[in-house]
Amino acid sequence: MKASELAVSLGGTLEGDDVELFACGGLEEARPGDLSFCKDPKHVKLVASTKASAVLLPREWTDSAPCSVIRVDDPNHACMRAAEIFAPPAPVRAPAVHPSAVVDPSVKLGENVHVGPFTVIEKGAVIGDGAVIEAQVFIGEGCVVGPDSHIYPQVTLREGTKLGRGVILHCGVRLGGDGYGYNTTFENGLPKIEKIPQLGVVELGDFVEIGSNTTIDRARIGRTYIGPHTKIDNLVQIGHNVKVAGYSGIIAQAGVAGSSRIGSGCLIWAQAGISGHINIADGVQVGPQAGVPQSLDGSVKYVIGTPGESMKEFGARLLLPKMVAKLKAEVKELKARLDGQG
Amino acid sequence: MKASELAVSLGGTLEGDDVELFACGGLEEARPGDLSFCKDPKHVKLVASTKASAVLLPREWTDSAPCSVIRVDDPNHACMRAAEIFAPPAPVRAPAVHPSAVVDPSVKLGENVHVGPFTVIEKGAVIGDGAVIEAQVFIGEGCVVGPDSHIYPQVTLREGTKLGRGVILHCGVRLGGDGYGYNTTFENGLPKIEKIPQLGVVELGDFVEIGSNTTIDRARIGRTYIGPHTKIDNLVQIGHNVKVAGYSGIIAQAGVAGSSRIGSGCLIWAQAGISGHINIADGVQVGPQAGVPQSLDGSVKYVIGTPGESMKEFGARLLLPKMVAKLKAEVKELKARLDGQG
Amino acid sequence: MKASELAVSLGGTLEGDDVELFACGGLEEARPGDLSFCKDPKHVKLVASTKASAVLLPREWTDSAPCSVIRVDDPNHACMRAAEIFAPPAPVRAPAVHPSAVVDPSVKLGENVHVGPFTVIEKGAVIGDGAVIEAQVFIGEGCVVGPDSHIYPQVTLREGTKLGRGVILHCGVRLGGDGYGYNTTFENGLPKIEKIPQLGVVELGDFVEIGSNTTIDRARIGRTYIGPHTKIDNLVQIGHNVKVAGYSGIIAQAGVAGSSRIGSGCLIWAQAGISGHINIADGVQVGPQAGVPQSLDGSVKYVIGTPGESMKEFGARLLLPKMVAKLKAEVKELKARLDGQG
Repeated sequence: MKASELAVSLGGTLEGDDVELFACGGLEEARPGDLSFCKDPKHVKLVASTKASAVLLPREWTDSAPCSVIRVDDPNHACMRAAEIFAPPAPVRAPAVHPSAVVDPSVKLGENVHVGPFTVIEKGAVIGDGAVIEAQVFIGEGCVVGPDSHIYPQVTLREGTKLGRGVILHCGVRLGGDGYGYNTTFENGLPKIEKIPQLGVVELGDFVEIGSNTTIDRARIGRTYIGPHTKIDNLVQIGHNVKVAGYSGIIAQAGVAGSSRIGSGCLIWAQAGISGHINIADGVQVGPQAGVPQSLDGSVKYVIGTPGESMKEFGARLLLPKMVAKLKAEVKELKARLDGQG
Repeated sequence: MKASELAVSLGGTLEGDDVELFACGGLEEARPGDLSFCKDPKHVKLVASTKASAVLLPREWTDSAPCSVIRVDDPNHACMRAAEIFAPPAPVRAPAVHPSAVVDPSVKLGENVHVGPFTVIEKGAVIGDGAVIEAQVFIGEGCVVGPDSHIYPQVTLREGTKLGRGVILHCGVRLGGDGYGYNTTFENGLPKIEKIPQLGVVELGDFVEIGSNTTIDRARIGRTYIGPHTKIDNLVQIGHNVKVAGYSGIIAQAGVAGSSRIGSGCLIWAQAGISGHINIADGVQVGPQAGVPQSLDGSVKYVIGTPGESMKEFGARLLLPKMVAKLKAEVKELKARLDGQG
Repeated sequence: MKASELAVSLGGTLEGDDVELFACGGLEEARPGDLSFCKDPKHVKLVASTKASAVLLPREWTDSAPCSVIRVDDPNHACMRAAEIFAPPAPVRAPAVHPSAVVDPSVKLGENVHVGPFTVIEKGAVIGDGAVIEAQVFIGEGCVVGPDSHIYPQVTLREGTKLGRGVILHCGVRLGGDGYGYNTTFENGLPKIEKIPQLGVVELGDFVEIGSNTTIDRARIGRTYIGPHTKIDNLVQIGHNVKVAGYSGIIAQAGVAGSSRIGSGCLIWAQAGISGHINIADGVQVGPQAGVPQSLDGSVKYVIGTPGESMKEFGARLLLPKMVAKLKAEVKELKARLDGQG
């Protein structure tokens, strides 16, 4: 898009060449063809060295730039708008079933459903109005996909999985796999490991979003349940029979072991681990890489470290080496004084 | 199913309405239509507030319930039985090759093999009797799938992978990917990174089960080997040339780096990390989130923390802040006494 | 292959039976039919107890072996050569599009491109000369796959993803999923969570390799960028707008949160976590399981622990229990001396 056209769209003023622009990029990583932006005069050096073809600057900016300039009221906001203009339209998923898809005759397809190539939908499944099921998805027997849900390529829903309205599942999500459950007895000194049947299902509330390659196991009995509006990032593990009350977030590579309950409005940060059979109270946050072995009743709002403790306790622990070094010096001094008395 | 029918099946006695029941659920999360259960009188309040339509209670239970009651000898056991009754039958995987599957003519298919839609089986592969290979699976050249194995949708086996009898692979398992191996030399200050050919394979013993989205890399030379009856959970990473002796468990999101050996009967808990080229002796357990940089000879049976240490050592470390605070007070007091002498 | 033939190929001398050999294996795990190797006389007992059918030994080796022996100048090197000889040829991926693949007519396919069964390539995508795209891959609208790239089965590239030359993507890699980005406001005490449009793309430089089931999110605006020659292992998470300068390594199960920058020649070890919006300077290494909450300017070349610190600091922290125990004893002694004065 021509810089002049873009300037009009953004309500700004172009100075310099009417260059062709293709994408947005930060000042440091921008390439020719990019539009960058700067709001703060303290980044004047970054502006001076940018490789962008044009830069959005505040109207009152006084320094020069090595490229075309579009002056606007709010460069950050204008850049967001520009990104929307540059972004190619999202792929159209027309309401139709691709002829290659294998959809059992008993499946109930709602109105305006899209089913992509090589997708398999097994018997008894129910797909709500307006749902988009992209290519190479597997939907097992008796699954329910709520209206307006969007399932990206290569997701698998094992039999009986239920999704609410407006659920988004990114590529490679696995719902309803067997939980890790075995009965181990010992015979002749070697463990005998028997699989415990995993008879339950996975249910997701309305507007849940699950990131790429995340796994959520079916319940042993009953339901593994993710409440409405909960947002789960990539590569997260949710064990069997876990319950999340809703409106919570679970960030990448975190794990929640079997039968634990996460309250409403919780935030479990990246790579954190929640042990099995415990409760995390409403609104509690578990910091990155924290390990939580016991229930959290909400008296501490943010835990960090393994085992998880308050920021104050964690901070005190970090200071231990300095405290011990100081004590060591003090003890040495006391000893010298005592020795001097001798 | 009617509560009255269920009561007969469970050898119990129904009191109250003959409600329709569909699933099992814990007292707190149960919904109308659910059957719940309680064994212990201390949970009487949970029974009083449950939303279940019926509850399994011991015959001697005296308090009332807000729903129908089925009295039985052992509510926990009865609930397990009820869950089996409620569970829809597992999807039937009839012995047949779906017409859409692409199976090389050289593939040796055993008796009663199921191959689902859009599955690819490449030349020279051997599939044992009774194996179930579901939809959208990829089985590379020369792979061997043992009899009665079950491969869920969207698993990939790279060329040469061998599975024993009764192996279960959940959705998204990746076996036989190239290990992480490079030769890095430096030229003009920049690393030159050359890929080391990964010429080996992955072999799984009998009755191994692998959870969703777990990855096991092929050996650089020889075999990455998972011994019989070993159970691996979701999102686990097993590096090239790792050997697991068998009858061990590896829980979700744990990782074992290249060329390490895990003994028999070991348990590696969630999110733990085992360094490369080390040995974990038979029967050792590595706690959740532990990091093990060196071999464990079995003299400590359970390690925890990073680097992994005994529970006693780990516990002592946790107490350090209190110990240091106490020492600080004592030193202060000694100093005051000495100052008082001056 | 006959041991005698192999001996000729390796320039060695066979002693003992002319056994049939199929694969290489270490002394301890070798099975009948395997060729093993030993260079160092200190492993003489392992040689004596190996189950291999033949073993490569140095010409000057004096002890006996329980199997055939092939004497060579350098057993390690000879074993590498033998492994190459044993390895079945890599599967041939002939330049052709499988008839089952769904390739939009607008897709530009280069010369000698392989497209496997059940692969989907959407409109406007460009596939470079010599690229291999295996079975069951999804390539979204407008993606660019550089020449000589190799995409293993069941990879997904969301729309707009761009790969350089010679890129390798292992099974289950997810590129271009939406980043984790929401605006949360509070209404009536409950969070209202709105999805922030993820308008950018993922770009990979030349000769990048990505391990199985790793996920890299598209940028919110602009590009998530992995520089040339960077090698990423399995199950790694890379957040939106991350930039990796190139020639770096990221080992299994590590995670890099949104908008962070990794310099050139960095090494992020397994299960490490890098917070969002920070910079890791060129050449810095982050140790296994380390957590890095703040930028690293390169003054410390290797960090370990959470929060990441130098090896010296980390080592001091590990010694704290001993130091505190010693201090406790010293304080007790001082107290006794003071009490004795009283």
